Amino acid sequence: MANNLLAGKRGIIFGALDEQSIAWKVAERCAEEGAKFTLTNAPVAMRFGKIQELAEKVNAEVIPADATSNEDLETLIDKSVEILGGKLDFVLHSIGMSINVRKGRAYTDLKHDWMQKTFDVSAISFHRLMQTLYQKDAMNEWGSILALTYIAAQRTFPDYNEMAESKALLESFARSFGYHYGKHNHVRVNTISQSPTMTTAGSGIKGFQEFFDYADKMSPLGNAPAEDCANYCVVMFSDLTKQVTMQNLYHDGGFSNMGMSPDLLEE
Amino acid sequence: MANNLLAGKRGIIFGALDEQSIAWKVAERCAEEGAKFTLTNAPVAMRFGKIQELAEKVNAEVIPADATSNEDLETLIDKSVEILGGKLDFVLHSIGMSINVRKGRAYTDLKHDWMQKTFDVSAISFHRLMQTLYQKDAMNEWGSILALTYIAAQRTFPDYNEMAESKALLESFARSFGYHYGKHNHVRVNTISQSPTMTTAGSGIKGFQEFFDYADKMSPLGNAPAEDCANYCVVMFSDLTKQVTMQNLYHDGGFSNMGMSPDLLEE
Amino acid sequence: MANNLLAGKRGIIFGALDEQSIAWKVAERCAEEGAKFTLTNAPVAMRFGKIQELAEKVNAEVIPADATSNEDLETLIDKSVEILGGKLDFVLHSIGMSINVRKGRAYTDLKHDWMQKTFDVSAISFHRLMQTLYQKDAMNEWGSILALTYIAAQRTFPDYNEMAESKALLESFARSFGYHYGKHNHVRVNTISQSPTMTTAGSGIKGFQEFFDYADKMSPLGNAPAEDCANYCVVMFSDLTKQVTMQNLYHDGGFSNMGMSPDLLEE
Amino acid sequence: MANNLLAGKRGIIFGALDEQSIAWKVAERCAEEGAKFTLTNAPVAMRFGKIQELAEKVNAEVIPADATSNEDLETLIDKSVEILGGKLDFVLHSIGMSINVRKGRAYTDLKHDWMQKTFDVSAISFHRLMQTLYQKDAMNEWGSILALTYIAAQRTFPDYNEMAESKALLESFARSFGYHYGKHNHVRVNTISQSPTMTTAGSGIKGFQEFFDYADKMSPLGNAPAEDCANYCVVMFSDLTKQVTMQNLYHDGGFSNMGMSPDLLEE
Repeated sequence: MANNLLAGKRGIIFGALDEQSIAWKVAERCAEEGAKFTLTNAPVAMRFGKIQELAEKVNAEVIPADATSNEDLETLIDKSVEILGGKLDFVLHSIGMSINVRKGRAYTDLKHDWMQKTFDVSAISFHRLMQTLYQKDAMNEWGSILALTYIAAQRTFPDYNEMAESKALLESFARSFGYHYGKHNHVRVNTISQSPTMTTAGSGIKGFQEFFDYADKMSPLGNAPAEDCANYCVVMFSDLTKQVTMQNLYHDGGFSNMGMSPDLLEE
Repeated sequence: MANNLLAGKRGIIFGALDEQSIAWKVAERCAEEGAKFTLTNAPVAMRFGKIQELAEKVNAEVIPADATSNEDLETLIDKSVEILGGKLDFVLHSIGMSINVRKGRAYTDLKHDWMQKTFDVSAISFHRLMQTLYQKDAMNEWGSILALTYIAAQRTFPDYNEMAESKALLESFARSFGYHYGKHNHVRVNTISQSPTMTTAGSGIKGFQEFFDYADKMSPLGNAPAEDCANYCVVMFSDLTKQVTMQNLYHDGGFSNMGMSPDLLEE
Repeated sequence: MANNLLAGKRGIIFGALDEQSIAWKVAERCAEEGAKFTLTNAPVAMRFGKIQELAEKVNAEVIPADATSNEDLETLIDKSVEILGGKLDFVLHSIGMSINVRKGRAYTDLKHDWMQKTFDVSAISFHRLMQTLYQKDAMNEWGSILALTYIAAQRTFPDYNEMAESKALLESFARSFGYHYGKHNHVRVNTISQSPTMTTAGSGIKGFQEFFDYADKMSPLGNAPAEDCANYCVVMFSDLTKQVTMQNLYHDGGFSNMGMSPDLLEE
Repeated sequence: MANNLLAGKRGIIFGALDEQSIAWKVAERCAEEGAKFTLTNAPVAMRFGKIQELAEKVNAEVIPADATSNEDLETLIDKSVEILGGKLDFVLHSIGMSINVRKGRAYTDLKHDWMQKTFDVSAISFHRLMQTLYQKDAMNEWGSILALTYIAAQRTFPDYNEMAESKALLESFARSFGYHYGKHNHVRVNTISQSPTMTTAGSGIKGFQEFFDYADKMSPLGNAPAEDCANYCVVMFSDLTKQVTMQNLYHDGGFSNMGMSPDLLEE
């Protein structure tokens, strides 16, 4: 299914680790829809991921960048504009990491320097990225910037731990920068709040399978697959959604507006 | 701009009065994207509108129906399925009317029998429509039902009067029926909350121009034009948004997430 | 526990059916805190309830009123002002009824004339009441009007059926009238969104016990008891919350902001 | 007006700088309502504030503490429990600071190390505080923890700059910790989202007076005064709100649910 929705558009896609990554599928779909883009990831993530395999498949260059480094982001943007032959039309931010989660720390026993690292990598990186794009004037009129988020920003899922705060922060950056970038040259900024997804990152979280099954039962359409999320990203990058900005868009099979599903009780 | 997004899809579009109507533009865009559909409106609205002109342009049949009559809705659906040659993939509900508003009654001096008429025409009609579709099993798997709404459902715009309640009701029907239709055969139900739009209906509301200008200044991208709203409807009818359901989607240039715009003060 | 929070205040309390009713407990607490008030209920509800027992206990007069009748509401307000010796400071609306629910109709098979009756009794009555109070100028400066609601107005609980829409409507009336009454003479209007409660009305809903247990597990503090809800109403009627208006206030032990509780999975 | 609402309760109040501070007024009202508490502030803030004057007035001890230091927080809690003679029943967090705002940096040109300092002081301090209270088991059953916030956490007020993100973070901590503390021993955690207030801190923000006047016109009751906010804090510390947790409570004269006020256009 290809509809030529991104013909002639240029972009940057962060966070494609392996074929389970949402960003991986977004890259595949963007290529199918006619876009040209670069791929990027943190140098450390690239070592154990398969981003080069993806790069060959979608005919894209890989530019490593630490999203907590303004210098790396500057280089990434400069090179992308040069390689792609012009300003950018879309950017996908799909980055998240928490040492406290990895180390299994309880929410009531977090190390605050690790928390700050979590916020820096997972959320402040989004502001850094947009600020660098803005200062370099690297986005075309009506360009589209997206970040992936989770409903833990609004409601408490205890096992999601400090990533809840990280996503709340991320979504706030989207709103605030969406205002400034909209006024500047009509660039829109949104977040997509995706169902729990069986990615390498997601499935590492404690109790993830139960979490996943619970959400699947609660959602009238079931959990949204990564492939559909990639389609939704394509739509948000296209010219068909030009007036949507500063929004957090649930892509979750209906989960977010469910109070209780009878399916949860039928056991 | 056509991307073949609705090739082979069948639908019903309510509420195209004249070329200023959002529904009119949705019809034009759906035709461009390859859909076949019927058009409908209340018999009384058809007398002073131009729906026949649209019908010829997009090669669609017009089936008059009073949306407060279950019988009319049954006939509409039966005929549409017959004419289009199969079950439906999409439906647009774009209906609103308030006698209290027309008569200029203050919110603190409403006639409650008129209020009930407002709710019946503008909101309960949406439940009637979905219930009739559901009982006739007239929607295909993963079909998409949309209604147009306004942010007065969430926040108070005094001149919008009882239409605020009407839209709150409409959005609630979308959530509730979205659950049932999703479980039944994956049909999704959403509302699009559109910027104030210079339609024949909209511009009749008291103080509409001030309202429009205020929203335009408040929104970083300005008020969303009807043409873009039509694009967004196309997207929501397409297979690219299959996992989005029970949502109220703001299509408003960012208005909904603004607290205050400096532009409002610079005078 | 009495803190003299409502000394000298006058009010009307709707909906005390029996000692399980939240309104019953509100009446008891208001009396303890020094308020004077009248009690009211629909004539039909009074026949099988015990409101006279309550009336004696709290030394209040009972004035029957059908909340769908403007005439009855006028009489109720006139008599209350006369009996209590002055304008009113607080009003509690605690009314809800659905024939479709009583008759066990599925949400996809509702009778729309019953639905209209549901909305009239459960929600439009709130607008009628406020409009009558407003037109009679029967509320003192900084008075407080409350209605009881449920989170089904925001999220789907399938068994709650059309009462979801009814509560969405009710909450919208609170916002809209809150604006007008606030501008008029600083009267505030709010809704309290209470946990599922074992009242005679509540427990009649299909699957209520499972519903109740689910919510109890989901809420970190458990379901909020009716007694605490009565305390919250007292607080909202007092002068300590003068600047809170047009709000929907969750009184639910934390339920509304939970995404998933591990307690639900531990079985 | 004193109702003995906090008789026998013990607490800690952060952030009373001078008599314009909301925390100052909260301290005065808590004392009137029978509470005993300690006062605290950052050592640097104490130098130019008047906290000692307040301390004498309300008969409280002052314990300086840097809210970004776990050690200082430990000492503060230990000393407070010792001085007050038992575990705590309430805590008020009223802390905010942004170097980027002070230095007048545009949102599109922020220094990220300053941003991290902002988040550490204004938001992470709230998690540090609750974690320290939790680990020391220093809160009584059904205790109440509050933080002051602003609606910029939900909507964009461009001049509020990165404090928007800071408040989004703060409110997320309230939800997440509210779950854990609720399960642990029924301690509730909430935020109060207050109208713009003419404090020494608030009035330092660029364009504050216009901001203030705009909000005042938009709010049907006008901006909520600090004195009323103090009353609302008392209510939230009292036993009358035991089942309210994980909530963000607007205390804003209705601002948060207004879409447009006609008063804004009448000039």
